[in-house]
Amino acid sequence: MQVRVFVTPRKGILDPQGRAVEGSLHSLGFKNVSGVKVGKFITFEIDARSAAEASAQAKKMCEQLLANAVIEDFRFEVDSR
Amino acid sequence: MQVRVFVTPRKGILDPQGRAVEGSLHSLGFKNVSGVKVGKFITFEIDARSAAEASAQAKKMCEQLLANAVIEDFRFEVDSR
Repeated sequence: MQVRVFVTPRKGILDPQGRAVEGSLHSLGFKNVSGVKVGKFITFEIDARSAAEASAQAKKMCEQLLANAVIEDFRFEVDSR
Repeated sequence: MQVRVFVTPRKGILDPQGRAVEGSLHSLGFKNVSGVKVGKFITFEIDARSAAEASAQAKKMCEQLLANAVIEDFRFEVDSR
């Protein structure tokens, strides 16, 4: 099964990378862009018996390694195929 | 309108961050995980007259700044609301 994880800076947390990208977009002429946030997009294959099992493991992986709960939120999708 | 951009390492391109994450997941006991790829997840608001205009601009932003075409693929979604 394929898992897709989205890790984003929490609301209210300073996102310097997002600020930098926004500044660069404005410099390039894209002045109509705002609220840029830069997060991580992590994909992997997991060998699990069910989507529920894959989800439970993916949640643990996010909590233990993929996201830093202090400054980041995460969500994930499991494709059972 | 909200735009969500997914930037991923191209197939066949070495993804050292993905390798490192995969190694760490295995060390944590998640041995059933493979093919880890780490990319970027970028979100922003765009002030555009139509979803088509927003899409055209988002494509340019990806090509000019957000993704490095030599080593990365990108795709994006526009939420017109």
